[in-house]
Amino acid sequence: MKLGLIGFGRIGKIHYYNILQRIPEAEIVMVSDPMADLSAIGTAIGTPDDILNHEEIEAVIICSPTDTHADLVEACAKKGKHIFCEKPLDLSLERISAAIKLVEEHGVKLMMGFNRRFDANFLKIRELVLNGSVGEPQIVKITSRDPGPPPLTYLRESGGMFLDMSIHDFDMARYIMGKEVTGVFAHAAVFCGEDIEAAGDIDTAIITLTFEDQSMAVIDNSRKAVYGYDQRLEVFGSKGMVNVDNNTPDKHHFYNEQGVHSALPLHFFLERYTESYLLEMRQFINALKNGGKVPVGGEDARQATRIALAAKKSVKEKRWVSLEEI
Amino acid sequence: MKLGLIGFGRIGKIHYYNILQRIPEAEIVMVSDPMADLSAIGTAIGTPDDILNHEEIEAVIICSPTDTHADLVEACAKKGKHIFCEKPLDLSLERISAAIKLVEEHGVKLMMGFNRRFDANFLKIRELVLNGSVGEPQIVKITSRDPGPPPLTYLRESGGMFLDMSIHDFDMARYIMGKEVTGVFAHAAVFCGEDIEAAGDIDTAIITLTFEDQSMAVIDNSRKAVYGYDQRLEVFGSKGMVNVDNNTPDKHHFYNEQGVHSALPLHFFLERYTESYLLEMRQFINALKNGGKVPVGGEDARQATRIALAAKKSVKEKRWVSLEEI
Amino acid sequence: MKLGLIGFGRIGKIHYYNILQRIPEAEIVMVSDPMADLSAIGTAIGTPDDILNHEEIEAVIICSPTDTHADLVEACAKKGKHIFCEKPLDLSLERISAAIKLVEEHGVKLMMGFNRRFDANFLKIRELVLNGSVGEPQIVKITSRDPGPPPLTYLRESGGMFLDMSIHDFDMARYIMGKEVTGVFAHAAVFCGEDIEAAGDIDTAIITLTFEDQSMAVIDNSRKAVYGYDQRLEVFGSKGMVNVDNNTPDKHHFYNEQGVHSALPLHFFLERYTESYLLEMRQFINALKNGGKVPVGGEDARQATRIALAAKKSVKEKRWVSLEEI
Amino acid sequence: MKLGLIGFGRIGKIHYYNILQRIPEAEIVMVSDPMADLSAIGTAIGTPDDILNHEEIEAVIICSPTDTHADLVEACAKKGKHIFCEKPLDLSLERISAAIKLVEEHGVKLMMGFNRRFDANFLKIRELVLNGSVGEPQIVKITSRDPGPPPLTYLRESGGMFLDMSIHDFDMARYIMGKEVTGVFAHAAVFCGEDIEAAGDIDTAIITLTFEDQSMAVIDNSRKAVYGYDQRLEVFGSKGMVNVDNNTPDKHHFYNEQGVHSALPLHFFLERYTESYLLEMRQFINALKNGGKVPVGGEDARQATRIALAAKKSVKEKRWVSLEEI
Repeated sequence: MKLGLIGFGRIGKIHYYNILQRIPEAEIVMVSDPMADLSAIGTAIGTPDDILNHEEIEAVIICSPTDTHADLVEACAKKGKHIFCEKPLDLSLERISAAIKLVEEHGVKLMMGFNRRFDANFLKIRELVLNGSVGEPQIVKITSRDPGPPPLTYLRESGGMFLDMSIHDFDMARYIMGKEVTGVFAHAAVFCGEDIEAAGDIDTAIITLTFEDQSMAVIDNSRKAVYGYDQRLEVFGSKGMVNVDNNTPDKHHFYNEQGVHSALPLHFFLERYTESYLLEMRQFINALKNGGKVPVGGEDARQATRIALAAKKSVKEKRWVSLEEI
Repeated sequence: MKLGLIGFGRIGKIHYYNILQRIPEAEIVMVSDPMADLSAIGTAIGTPDDILNHEEIEAVIICSPTDTHADLVEACAKKGKHIFCEKPLDLSLERISAAIKLVEEHGVKLMMGFNRRFDANFLKIRELVLNGSVGEPQIVKITSRDPGPPPLTYLRESGGMFLDMSIHDFDMARYIMGKEVTGVFAHAAVFCGEDIEAAGDIDTAIITLTFEDQSMAVIDNSRKAVYGYDQRLEVFGSKGMVNVDNNTPDKHHFYNEQGVHSALPLHFFLERYTESYLLEMRQFINALKNGGKVPVGGEDARQATRIALAAKKSVKEKRWVSLEEI
Repeated sequence: MKLGLIGFGRIGKIHYYNILQRIPEAEIVMVSDPMADLSAIGTAIGTPDDILNHEEIEAVIICSPTDTHADLVEACAKKGKHIFCEKPLDLSLERISAAIKLVEEHGVKLMMGFNRRFDANFLKIRELVLNGSVGEPQIVKITSRDPGPPPLTYLRESGGMFLDMSIHDFDMARYIMGKEVTGVFAHAAVFCGEDIEAAGDIDTAIITLTFEDQSMAVIDNSRKAVYGYDQRLEVFGSKGMVNVDNNTPDKHHFYNEQGVHSALPLHFFLERYTESYLLEMRQFINALKNGGKVPVGGEDARQATRIALAAKKSVKEKRWVSLEEI
Repeated sequence: MKLGLIGFGRIGKIHYYNILQRIPEAEIVMVSDPMADLSAIGTAIGTPDDILNHEEIEAVIICSPTDTHADLVEACAKKGKHIFCEKPLDLSLERISAAIKLVEEHGVKLMMGFNRRFDANFLKIRELVLNGSVGEPQIVKITSRDPGPPPLTYLRESGGMFLDMSIHDFDMARYIMGKEVTGVFAHAAVFCGEDIEAAGDIDTAIITLTFEDQSMAVIDNSRKAVYGYDQRLEVFGSKGMVNVDNNTPDKHHFYNEQGVHSALPLHFFLERYTESYLLEMRQFINALKNGGKVPVGGEDARQATRIALAAKKSVKEKRWVSLEEI
């Protein structure tokens, strides 16, 4: 199974080395990134077109900037190449829908990089929901806080917190519940600096999601948790409740006269989701090899984006926004 | 300090025995309850009027049914007796305001029984907020779930979940934040049976509160957590985060081939808030003796009621409701 | 049920107020303590002899200094009064045996104040051992550390750490295992100051106990844990393991840039064992009223003392000491 | 840096793939194992002699059966090759000493595979001891229990539990304390089956270690913890206490009517110490490349073996055994 990789930034590198070192059944045969120094890696270098036209390449991993995703997805589809694309597929719902349509028409597989679905903690929750242990799920609670806001240059292109950051949580809520969201209410604020406000963005929010059967999810987001990356989840159902705490670098408790002290959560997503990135890529390769369905598809990207757009509207209009409006 | 007690139900008994056994500086000299068997207690029995007219009684503890609270508060005020009143003061905002006005006119003290403010866990959170450890509070999260719904007869008189149960959480949010709520969004559902729906009530909700400075609180409520009474709180601020877990009857962890097993939360409010009931009464007695302010006043009852009424309206109209509308 | 109380020090007061406030079926009718100011309590004051000769007193609670215990126990027995005696019964094994013999001859009940047996955590462990959850117990581990050493004046009369402090743990090991100890190895040291060494005592130890069936217990003691009172227990068996952690004043976790911080254990035995003191007294009263066996008898005192003496010998001779030698 | 690997069993494979995938600065150029199927790996295959005579190989990793370790270590030393050797170096103290002497004479580096020193939890404890946070360490407590006994064929060659299993804990105690052990007391038993007894071995033990300054360590071992691999450590010192709990596959807590349920420890050493194996090998490679000292040397093997032999003697003679006797 030969692959091409477009974009050798932070995430591109993760996928590159995971495949090189830990997924022996696949091989990246060409890498493209106009900005990165690729001289040290022992893989052929090319342009995106070189990858798209490479006859042996069956699938392409897209980790380039967001505004190139939809174009590249469509180009891959036209060339009959399967696609693994980092989120978001695009910031525009129309553009996403068009890309998905093209993908379907060309019969290629598109997997979206919602890597948190592959975290051991969330998988455990999913298992306990699916096997009925928690009964009918009624409330999902997601805490998702970053250790600090990204640079303003990044923020300005990101589509805003809901489309850039909360979108992971919207996907998680759908994934855990196995149901579609019907509407959104969001209250948001800026606490992390005037720059964010000037950029028209927000950094802190409480978002309530409603589902078809009146069950509900609540997400709280902050761009700046001084104690690090906070990623917790809880499902409350008719037969029980399950929650997961953060992972930590170690399990020590230190007792002195001042109190008991223990380790902060793993600092950020690279540390917390190391194994999730590996597992999602393994499942992508596996789906290609064995002809199955990819576990996260284009429709998942579309739904998460709709929720994000509804959240934006809800903040602006201070009301619950039905997904049907989006 | 001589006291009268009106209402010898579940809560009335708690106060009675706490004062008898553990608050030696006060004494209940007369008890009134037409429904309870008072023959075994060694205290004089009388009607509410007997208590109101008892010359030595300086303060009255009101634990009778909700619909008698406002009348009794006013009657006490007119007789110049200080008042400790279980929540709610009344279900009608006008009635509450009138009672508070009368209390103020007669210069008596009125303390409301929001006993959770006196729980060691929440006091600890309050301390860390007040001393600046968490910085500027941005998000308060309250989990508040009962082990099972009360009888329908109770529910029908209760004013509904927001006025009966969530009102404790509304008070807690105000207390922890030290700020006033500006608006409410609530999504609610019925998962615990058709009876509740038929009674026009709800049993599960997510409620977002907004504060003057854009900070926010989120409360999730359920009338039926099969694993018991779930009372947790978290404050997220600019300098840190603090949360408290449930209390348990013991701290055991049992490991066998199936997993690790530990104790459920203390079953319900009588177990969880045993010491809170004592501490609130001690502070009431103390405020009377030393002439200070009572820690929870009539205005607190009024504000919590306003939030509850806004939540009801929000569910009905599917929008954020400004407190100014109430 | 009328009782007399001899000794109104720290422990005597606990029993006094527990009975007064929370055990209505019993009443202390006379208190004796030559050193304490008893003017404020509303109970008759007398000499120990007054109590022994008081016709209505059925049982005596002995909380006076250690060197008076055996004499008072014997005097009570001769007068036909039941006895609740704080540990130790005596420091001399012969004296203990003699007192027990007299107690048996006079057919009175003697309960020893090993109050830790009545702690909710240890009761939970005992339950899981008795109901077979942990299978055949193989290893018991007890961590028992004080927040600081007692005054030297106390230490000099105490019989040393094994007889004064570890004796609780020796009793606990027997209680949890439900088996007799066959031998002891102890390694001890002095880390808390030259005074303790000068007094011929030790302050830190690891003690291994062996049981008839080769199962084993290990206790670690320190007179000075700077972080407070550390009382944990673990049982490892053929079907599982159970342990209990310390109780804390609250369940908060505070996260800031430095780490996660939580509450230290309850400071010392008065805080940790508040409820144990109540429960043991209730069981004593109950055994008297209903004619049952007291849950901790004189033989328990004798066995714990034998283990303590064996531990002393083991440290001195640097070898395992059979209980048969004692 | 070219390496040879002798022994491609469970541990040999771990080192092989760690170097192949995650330590790019080193390369295994030849593997030797008469029993394993090596056809699938892309590395040259040879006899141990081929490796010893391979001119480019600078260091040899020895993962063959225990009874070959000392011979291979000596052969490597004579050929001037650095050595990474799995524990134990040998079961005989004389043989170990001879091998160490030869290693020193030939000026090669010998690192012993006490991989637990490289576990994040124990490293954290070591850090808090070294930086003075716990003050002067007084008590070290090690819980070390396997999920099940190894096959009898293995047991018979293993030298017994102390030399095979507890030896890791003896090394850990020395490592954490940074001091030498002066004597040992051990009580041991057989609870896991007659076969173990017939083989002259034990499966459960409490071992007390004494150090030069009277500080102490206690280890409890079992060959069969039905709930999995239990690896905990605690250090108690003059300024505080630190302990580490087991690692788990996830951090979930599931609450239902029966209780709260969470994950068992990672099943066994392959899961628990995955990263420790990698880190120890990185440090070995690093020490070779940069000319530093290896972090675990032959003397560490010798001292751990002495403690194990003393423990055996202590069980037999039921007394504390000075290390000077060994």
